[in-house]
Amino acid sequence: MNKPLIASQPLPPAAFPSPWAGAQDREQQRESKRQAVLSTAAQLFNERGFHATSLDDIAARLNVSKPTLYYYVKNKDQILIECVRQGLQMTLDGIEASRQEGGHAIDQLMACMRVYARIVTMDFGMCLIRVGDEELPPDSRQELRRLKSAIDHEFRRLVAAGIEEGSLQPCDPKITAFVIAGALSWIGRWYQPGGEYTPEQIADQCIATLCDGVLRRTSVAAP
Amino acid sequence: MNKPLIASQPLPPAAFPSPWAGAQDREQQRESKRQAVLSTAAQLFNERGFHATSLDDIAARLNVSKPTLYYYVKNKDQILIECVRQGLQMTLDGIEASRQEGGHAIDQLMACMRVYARIVTMDFGMCLIRVGDEELPPDSRQELRRLKSAIDHEFRRLVAAGIEEGSLQPCDPKITAFVIAGALSWIGRWYQPGGEYTPEQIADQCIATLCDGVLRRTSVAAP
Repeated sequence: MNKPLIASQPLPPAAFPSPWAGAQDREQQRESKRQAVLSTAAQLFNERGFHATSLDDIAARLNVSKPTLYYYVKNKDQILIECVRQGLQMTLDGIEASRQEGGHAIDQLMACMRVYARIVTMDFGMCLIRVGDEELPPDSRQELRRLKSAIDHEFRRLVAAGIEEGSLQPCDPKITAFVIAGALSWIGRWYQPGGEYTPEQIADQCIATLCDGVLRRTSVAAP
Repeated sequence: MNKPLIASQPLPPAAFPSPWAGAQDREQQRESKRQAVLSTAAQLFNERGFHATSLDDIAARLNVSKPTLYYYVKNKDQILIECVRQGLQMTLDGIEASRQEGGHAIDQLMACMRVYARIVTMDFGMCLIRVGDEELPPDSRQELRRLKSAIDHEFRRLVAAGIEEGSLQPCDPKITAFVIAGALSWIGRWYQPGGEYTPEQIADQCIATLCDGVLRRTSVAAP
């Protein structure tokens, strides 16, 4: 006679939480583990190069077996594509945020330079600079070149708008955008995490040099 | 009775030149063919990437068989090392020539920027920029990094000397040298031979932008 009584009562609270995560938590855990795989892979690609890095290396640094990796990623190509895509997407999001802020073109350009200088010191951004497009299968290469080209165009648009508003020197916006992108991208080649300079110090001086030039003002202004 | 007579006379001039080259000419021909192999390889590496280029591709573009290539080069790694080494050596020679010219540090710096901007639009120089060090075996990587680092140091030395003589803005020479090297190296990534701009136009505007900055002078000088 006890059974129906028990069944009709609400379940008492569990004495301790279930060691099995709920569906939503599980999905979050999976995603954060997938991100850890991608970040670790990006670090290794940046340190050793894409070809010299194996899935075994990535698994070893994460203290997991190679089969475990396959639960999160398909293969090394797909990892690289994801790393580069995230680096590009972070940049495009940063550019979009500066655009939303509005204001003068020069302020937006400075904000974009700062975003870009910061991102190329981070795992995915550095990967974008250090690993060549050529390493990717043609389809993905096309997609990633489209995203890169969107960044180039945004820099060009801002340079052109800066000339228009009178804040920038008259120039060919395409070449000037490449000078900016080149100087800032190069940070991703030489920056060493935990090294001599912080990413902030680097961004400050690189942006100042790009804005004001290397020549001393007085010696240039002299007739 | 004729034999001794003929033998004692000097040989008459050949009616037509021998189709077999002399030893010295043969060596020159071999060297120029070897250079053709290297240049063609560099072009292919720049177009398709190092890994996507095979010795068969190189042989096909030169209209020779793959075994013929092995008469000039050992393998693909050695080709890449030679291409990058020549790009670096051209740069170091150009820097040394500006140093020999003497004069102010700023003039030497401008001359070096011009040399470097030109070289990265050429086959070997472009290879230097487009193909990562990581692709090389460790020994060669060390050697080529030493040459690259010599170029970095020369730019840093000239920036420091320019600050000293008062022609350059006070700055951290290391970061400024990287801004210069980055902006100019990037040319090797985006330049297209026979494209919209000549190497000269690109060098002119890139150097002007690096010297004077992107900001319009009057708006900056304003308090």
